Amino acid sequence: MSSPSTPRPAALIVRQASPPNLETPFHALDGRITPGESVYVRSHFPAPDLNAESWRLQLGGLVDSPLGLSLDDLRAMPAHTVAATMECAGNGRMYLSPRMPGVQWDLGAVGTAEWTGVLLRDVLERVGIRDGALEVVLEGADCGTLTDPGRTPGDIRYARSVPLAQAQDDVLLAYAMNGQPLTRDHGFPLRAVVPGWYGMAAVKWLTTLHVTDAPYQGFFQTVDYSFWQGRDGLSPQMVPMTAMQVKAQIARPAPHDTVTAGRPCEVVGAAWTGEGDVTRVEFSSDGGTSWADAELLDAPQAGVWRRWRYGWQTPGQPGTVTLMARATDSAGRRQEADHDAGRGGYMINFPLPITVYLRAEDS
Amino acid sequence: MSSPSTPRPAALIVRQASPPNLETPFHALDGRITPGESVYVRSHFPAPDLNAESWRLQLGGLVDSPLGLSLDDLRAMPAHTVAATMECAGNGRMYLSPRMPGVQWDLGAVGTAEWTGVLLRDVLERVGIRDGALEVVLEGADCGTLTDPGRTPGDIRYARSVPLAQAQDDVLLAYAMNGQPLTRDHGFPLRAVVPGWYGMAAVKWLTTLHVTDAPYQGFFQTVDYSFWQGRDGLSPQMVPMTAMQVKAQIARPAPHDTVTAGRPCEVVGAAWTGEGDVTRVEFSSDGGTSWADAELLDAPQAGVWRRWRYGWQTPGQPGTVTLMARATDSAGRRQEADHDAGRGGYMINFPLPITVYLRAEDS
Repeated sequence: MSSPSTPRPAALIVRQASPPNLETPFHALDGRITPGESVYVRSHFPAPDLNAESWRLQLGGLVDSPLGLSLDDLRAMPAHTVAATMECAGNGRMYLSPRMPGVQWDLGAVGTAEWTGVLLRDVLERVGIRDGALEVVLEGADCGTLTDPGRTPGDIRYARSVPLAQAQDDVLLAYAMNGQPLTRDHGFPLRAVVPGWYGMAAVKWLTTLHVTDAPYQGFFQTVDYSFWQGRDGLSPQMVPMTAMQVKAQIARPAPHDTVTAGRPCEVVGAAWTGEGDVTRVEFSSDGGTSWADAELLDAPQAGVWRRWRYGWQTPGQPGTVTLMARATDSAGRRQEADHDAGRGGYMINFPLPITVYLRAEDS
Repeated sequence: MSSPSTPRPAALIVRQASPPNLETPFHALDGRITPGESVYVRSHFPAPDLNAESWRLQLGGLVDSPLGLSLDDLRAMPAHTVAATMECAGNGRMYLSPRMPGVQWDLGAVGTAEWTGVLLRDVLERVGIRDGALEVVLEGADCGTLTDPGRTPGDIRYARSVPLAQAQDDVLLAYAMNGQPLTRDHGFPLRAVVPGWYGMAAVKWLTTLHVTDAPYQGFFQTVDYSFWQGRDGLSPQMVPMTAMQVKAQIARPAPHDTVTAGRPCEVVGAAWTGEGDVTRVEFSSDGGTSWADAELLDAPQAGVWRRWRYGWQTPGQPGTVTLMARATDSAGRRQEADHDAGRGGYMINFPLPITVYLRAEDS
């Protein structure tokens, strides 16, 4: 059996040096949990260098008793560890045609880590939520200048909101990833983890939690990380991105790998969805005309991808083929063949075409 | 006394031929009510040609009994006539530096008309508002294709919402302007009039009223006709434009008029505000360094501009001067000297500089 690309040592690929936007070499997919040094990094602004001693998490807004919590305060609270697959909403952007502005991610702005911290709901209980509360705005320490053509918002901090119901469910405030304290690039000393949602909600360098009575309308909730819902009608509305779309990716063969013609080839990958579980993965080696069921390797686990495999018998003739994978989840959602233009450069979950070369055995 | 520019016959100035965007010659300001043929026209899409017989106003959403109303049904309801000053949110855009995209309005995307129709609250009473209602979405029959770079919303209809409290207050559904049935350009057979708000809320060619339980996030409420509020902090939020900002405009002398040096010159204009009344207008002939009180000519009237005059003694030496006017309203708001960049090409209420030439009497 040919082994088109043995997992190479995992090192992050630099898509943008400053601020750091680094993707995992997805072809190196191995265990269900991504090694810490291989977890992708997405930054909007330069990473703040926060002092763990003086840092405080400030809680305010519609709460009974505003509060500032130190890292020690948080560590003294009940700790929870959750595994979560997190994908950047722009993952796969380089496959879009026409090209969309933004970091040109390949397959690697996704990963699965084990996060340790306190539940947001436990923190909210300490301050007491007042009547009329609707959302919790998560604000980071990272800030910079953004220009929106024609309507410059100027200097802004990175911030995102979650509905109160979500905040009181499974949102984690994490101080550790895979058993190690967060690194600076991953949001030291504290970041949010919103299981099932795209990474934009997992605010890093958390400094403020603000409970509000109105939908948050900041830049990263409206101009950025929002999409047009209802484009089949004449009244589309701008909706903030939330849950990850169902998606399967092929790890190996990697794009532009060479495999041997007329031989078995082990195809492996991972598949995830934002709500429920992935229940089916299909594989195509003819550009999406025909599909065959792949084998799911991992048991279902809420919020965590399932690895899969397919024993592909490669064609006998040398040439070039396009491999694709698509997933279906427990809610019956299956990846659509085409990208919805209303999503712009985000939520890219059409089956990505992976080109591989077939070569005769002795060539 | 010199009379720099006698009111000329009022004809609309074509800023854009198709769809029609026509402005009033503001220098021709005469009565408090703008003649119907001089009321500015703002169109986003080609004007629909609606048939008064088959046309219906559809009411749906969070209502007890959805309903379709004909023009006769509406005319059979109690009629109300209200005078309202209406300004396009982009009025004065040509004075912005740097230039902003959009129709390059001079001073004339503003006017005051008498609107006749039924109160929105009377219509809502007929269908019954259900618990949880938050807004009423006003949808027109006009539609077209818009492109938002990177996130194309595609074909959309013009729509805007008003909060329920506003809808149950003084919003009018008008079928006549200045005693005449609406013309096609003004929204025949029915348009909204939202007193005190910029014109974008006065949806023309009304076809649907949709009562909703969530803030409307359509294109003309978010990408267009919204602004950044809170730019002095690091968390600005996108807010839909609503009430008109306090503003005074000089009608005569008109921009680039020539007046006689060393003589009295009658300066006239109008001033308005979205909430409350204009209480003071000041005039400057030195580019905003010094200000003198102008005389208000009209009594306060909610939602209607007040005309004003100032007896200007022109300098004795020929040259060029910059005239400005600024208003203060009953809430204590006064026009700011500079345009807030967060407003983009909208809500332009800094004192607009009007250049006039001084010429010796016998030249």
